[in-house]
Amino acid sequence: MTDFCKLVNMPENDKQGLSVVTCTAPVNIAVIKYWGKRDEDLILPINSSLSVTLHQDQLKTTTTVACSRNFQQDRIWLNGKEEDINNPRLQSCLQEIRRFSRKRRNTGDSTSDASSVSHKVHICSVNNFPTAAGLASSASGYACLVYTLSQLFGVESEQLSAVARQGSGSACRSLYGGFVQWKLGTQLDGKDSLAEQVESESYWPELRVLILVVSAEQKSVGSTSGMHTSVETSQLLKYRADVVVPSRMEEMIRVIRERDFPAFGELTMKDSNQFHAICLDTYPPIFYLNNMSHRIISLVHRYNQYYGETRVAYTFDAGPNAVIYTLQDHLPEFVQVVRHFFPPEVNGEEFVKGLTVCSADLSEELKRDINMEPTPKGIRYIISTKAGPGPCVVKDPNHHLLGADGLPKKSAISH
Amino acid sequence: MTDFCKLVNMPENDKQGLSVVTCTAPVNIAVIKYWGKRDEDLILPINSSLSVTLHQDQLKTTTTVACSRNFQQDRIWLNGKEEDINNPRLQSCLQEIRRFSRKRRNTGDSTSDASSVSHKVHICSVNNFPTAAGLASSASGYACLVYTLSQLFGVESEQLSAVARQGSGSACRSLYGGFVQWKLGTQLDGKDSLAEQVESESYWPELRVLILVVSAEQKSVGSTSGMHTSVETSQLLKYRADVVVPSRMEEMIRVIRERDFPAFGELTMKDSNQFHAICLDTYPPIFYLNNMSHRIISLVHRYNQYYGETRVAYTFDAGPNAVIYTLQDHLPEFVQVVRHFFPPEVNGEEFVKGLTVCSADLSEELKRDINMEPTPKGIRYIISTKAGPGPCVVKDPNHHLLGADGLPKKSAISH
Repeated sequence: MTDFCKLVNMPENDKQGLSVVTCTAPVNIAVIKYWGKRDEDLILPINSSLSVTLHQDQLKTTTTVACSRNFQQDRIWLNGKEEDINNPRLQSCLQEIRRFSRKRRNTGDSTSDASSVSHKVHICSVNNFPTAAGLASSASGYACLVYTLSQLFGVESEQLSAVARQGSGSACRSLYGGFVQWKLGTQLDGKDSLAEQVESESYWPELRVLILVVSAEQKSVGSTSGMHTSVETSQLLKYRADVVVPSRMEEMIRVIRERDFPAFGELTMKDSNQFHAICLDTYPPIFYLNNMSHRIISLVHRYNQYYGETRVAYTFDAGPNAVIYTLQDHLPEFVQVVRHFFPPEVNGEEFVKGLTVCSADLSEELKRDINMEPTPKGIRYIISTKAGPGPCVVKDPNHHLLGADGLPKKSAISH
Repeated sequence: MTDFCKLVNMPENDKQGLSVVTCTAPVNIAVIKYWGKRDEDLILPINSSLSVTLHQDQLKTTTTVACSRNFQQDRIWLNGKEEDINNPRLQSCLQEIRRFSRKRRNTGDSTSDASSVSHKVHICSVNNFPTAAGLASSASGYACLVYTLSQLFGVESEQLSAVARQGSGSACRSLYGGFVQWKLGTQLDGKDSLAEQVESESYWPELRVLILVVSAEQKSVGSTSGMHTSVETSQLLKYRADVVVPSRMEEMIRVIRERDFPAFGELTMKDSNQFHAICLDTYPPIFYLNNMSHRIISLVHRYNQYYGETRVAYTFDAGPNAVIYTLQDHLPEFVQVVRHFFPPEVNGEEFVKGLTVCSADLSEELKRDINMEPTPKGIRYIISTKAGPGPCVVKDPNHHLLGADGLPKKSAISH
């Protein structure tokens, strides 16, 4: 494990008995997709999955949790707005963390403030990425919540996977950096359905990630209800889970360890396509890809075809935005290809956000061979990033999202 | 069998030794889809399929074949343009028909002109529907060609399935009217991979068909290369063919015999969705549905949801146009729903072609419950039709597409 920024274990405890901890957690993008639960209460999946944790410099959730004997009730603010604390999944996470904390305290294991676990908490959480980016904020959100609570209440990191999973399945994968698998497990109680790191973020430094944010059209079916309907109705899903994914998991771990980009890219694309195929085989069918997604898919295949090798790979979650994996060497040209075939609005917002991408020239031959009609403004912007570490504790108290009064600071609301 | 219009068996043979026969053949729309060959040469499928033959009053291919000892070579004109007679599939059909004809003649079975089989043929074929309708013209085209040749050369109808299949797999289903299955077969030589009628077109007279022609965008992958790539790359296809389709075939035949529209409709939609899911699971993926197809799918589900039963069903072949099955009673309202949510161009071409559809009023409640943003001009026009008979011989010599000189008449070219 490389939770290198897990530097403090003790929450601050000020004079008014207010304990405050702030942490950040990353987004993850699956390359072997999670789709379908075998247990809806415990959130146990029907297949293992594997993801890349994205760097928090570009995409992260920040969460502050404060507890105090003076708080009357648990409260939560998300992106500046108070939300219902009685959300069942949120309640699951709170209860589970408190249960683990009490258990640890009772066995005399805890180094944390023994009384805090009985106090009410105030939770304040913000994302540094817009909802429009179409990134599932539930994974980084629940990972950050659970991680922050664990710091406050002194819960061991081995337990967090099971707790985060009950907030949002894929949240358990956001508890680690780099390449992370969420093992299906076999136990009925889900105790062995846990995330673990396959390789750290430093293992394959040349790997780069682009998020292509397309112009959204209509709201899609949420992933929770979508995967429920798939399990109920798709005849192909069971075959995918039982037969296809087990061998793909093995292959994916192998090609990551070998840093074999062509194999990694091809398998990533195939698994994204199969996930969307399952959505279509669901009744009524679910469509997450739109015409713009189809064009991006087509562009990637034509680009790879031109070079006769897989240099760039796409994957799509429950929405039309593409996540592109490529290697550093091919990044500048591919970004230029995207710019050419999806010309951005002139004087519009910055087209490439995040990690700097060098400029590149495109050969006329490449443009001609790709042979696609450009689609102006088809892509709103690109976020350029790479693999990154797992959750971090934020030491600087100026970054707490909750003030000394236990309420959101103005800066947390304006986010 | 109900080839009720198969009235003549002898071609006309004029004074110049020119034998001429003209026939028509229908389009068919599968409700259990054919996708994937186990033998590319013999065109043997990996699963059985089942289709509804559409009425020729709206959609048909007309083919005239003439043979004469004076013809120097085989020639073919399609929709007014001479095409290459050396097309391998065309050659397969010509060779097979001649082989069967000789065989029959040698066994003294034939009633036809004994010498004609050694003569060269001129073939002229036209469709009464535009290519833009996105209907696979190869099925009606090869069915018509093979049927017409069989009339000219005296080949028994039992043999035609195997010949038509070698032109285009689904062509064998266009040899019969009504509800037709193409049985997979088990023999290596394909002798038992044949089409047969399940029920005639008069069995379920209330069943109605609409073809919603959407505004096409880009050319899709052809079905021949598409299904080849699916067989090579889709892990889900084998499971579909081996496990899913056999039970669906049984169920489909049962619900047709019971005239159970809700069950027929639901199974039709599920199988269309699964076919497109397989296309997506293909590598590189194949997309035949576009955003407009997605909207039609959504409209159908919302309409059925409103009534709490499946009143309307969609199916899509290798393109974005929808084929809708419904019952006569629900037709006027559904057409009005389509008109409301896809408002046609004012003063544009006729919106509903083919069989007359009565007008209907929509309740405000229905429009509100469907709750979709209208998409002006999203559907170009509708062809209204129903199930119909198999191939017919055209007796009136005025309808021959080839003149006394053996060349296309002007009227055949202007089609």
